[in-house]
Amino acid sequence: MAVLGKVYLIGAGPGAADLITVRGARLLGEAEVVLYDALVTPEMLALCAQAELIPVGKRSGQRSTAQTVINEKLVDAAQRYQRVVRLKGGDPMLFGRADEELRALEEAGIEVEVVPGITTAVAAAAATLQPLTKRGVARSVAFFTSSTAPGEPDHPALPETDTLVQYMGGREAAATAERLLAEGRRPDLPVVVVENCSRADQRVRRLTLADLAHGLDVAHGPVLVMIGEAMGHRPHQSLDPSA
Amino acid sequence: MAVLGKVYLIGAGPGAADLITVRGARLLGEAEVVLYDALVTPEMLALCAQAELIPVGKRSGQRSTAQTVINEKLVDAAQRYQRVVRLKGGDPMLFGRADEELRALEEAGIEVEVVPGITTAVAAAAATLQPLTKRGVARSVAFFTSSTAPGEPDHPALPETDTLVQYMGGREAAATAERLLAEGRRPDLPVVVVENCSRADQRVRRLTLADLAHGLDVAHGPVLVMIGEAMGHRPHQSLDPSA
Repeated sequence: MAVLGKVYLIGAGPGAADLITVRGARLLGEAEVVLYDALVTPEMLALCAQAELIPVGKRSGQRSTAQTVINEKLVDAAQRYQRVVRLKGGDPMLFGRADEELRALEEAGIEVEVVPGITTAVAAAAATLQPLTKRGVARSVAFFTSSTAPGEPDHPALPETDTLVQYMGGREAAATAERLLAEGRRPDLPVVVVENCSRADQRVRRLTLADLAHGLDVAHGPVLVMIGEAMGHRPHQSLDPSA
Repeated sequence: MAVLGKVYLIGAGPGAADLITVRGARLLGEAEVVLYDALVTPEMLALCAQAELIPVGKRSGQRSTAQTVINEKLVDAAQRYQRVVRLKGGDPMLFGRADEELRALEEAGIEVEVVPGITTAVAAAAATLQPLTKRGVARSVAFFTSSTAPGEPDHPALPETDTLVQYMGGREAAATAERLLAEGRRPDLPVVVVENCSRADQRVRRLTLADLAHGLDVAHGPVLVMIGEAMGHRPHQSLDPSA
């Protein structure tokens, strides 16, 4: 019970094994135990084949491991091992509920270090050659998600930035589009939807805000919805055969 | 004139050499020529010691290399070399003027691939153990900057997200704070300022919105200003001796 190892909270990035940071990859290779999310890909777990692997995934719609249980497992791991990694899809500090895990570890007196990860928005921008900001067109961008916290209003005000990026946006994107239209945004405002960003089954779609209001048919996997003038189609390069 | 190599637009991340992605580091090590920004650190350039290094840095306040000249140099490099890297601090698609470089390369018929980088906001969140979103407290975050484009209004509306992150915020942060106070945000709203994120001379300061309105004394180096309830001090961990 008294080992009190160190916990590294590491961002895995969007999925491709080489889109983790060099620091993150090194720490994964040195870990004794890795607690990982449902969004972490098998190729990423191959980087820590030496470690004990503990899945603690949550999937929207499925109740798998409750956050309090994850917190307990993390504290427990740090009492048994010196080098513990908590691996999260994307970046831990953006929509990762890092606050709750950090608090639990700190209350238990366990040292924590956070290693940032490539958040899906910038990976999607790279994959589609679509900058999130553009000089003279878009100089602010917001990342947001719909509520998953009990007691929160389901739809607070939408950000009024030039570019909007909705994380976990598959089911919620139609409602977002309806509200943006009601707020006076143009029906032909360009939208780019990226599903399973950076993975072998990545899918890119280009549509308009009016299209988006009719809903998205989405399969599995994480969906990122990018909205704004900066998403205007680039004329000189075909981006994705499926687009 | 007819080589027509491929250009990799790579995000270097905030500065530490191991906060680039594995993919970015590999491509740097294979590059024949690297055109790099003023924000790229010497330790990062050590990853591509085999390459011809061309500085094309811009610094706020100093006119060094104009964007059109950078575009021309990129096209020229791709006409002389097979593997060209354009290395930018942070992520290329966020406040990186990637659009202009992508357009110039596409117009010249040159193939481009973008490799995302750790943007400073998530690196600063990691370095300060301060999540940008918090369940029940902050579920949207905006990244913005002040205008540098001719003809743009200097101060458009500020984002109304829960967390606000101002890039290149050293000089402009006081005006931002004044406007947020005028819009009714609390004077004691917590603010975290990170200078030279991830580097040996990183400096973290914790203050309030009212403090920020009095201005920041900043030295050199990039300054990131994070504002919002999510920046509330974490009680159990002292973060930085200089904080």
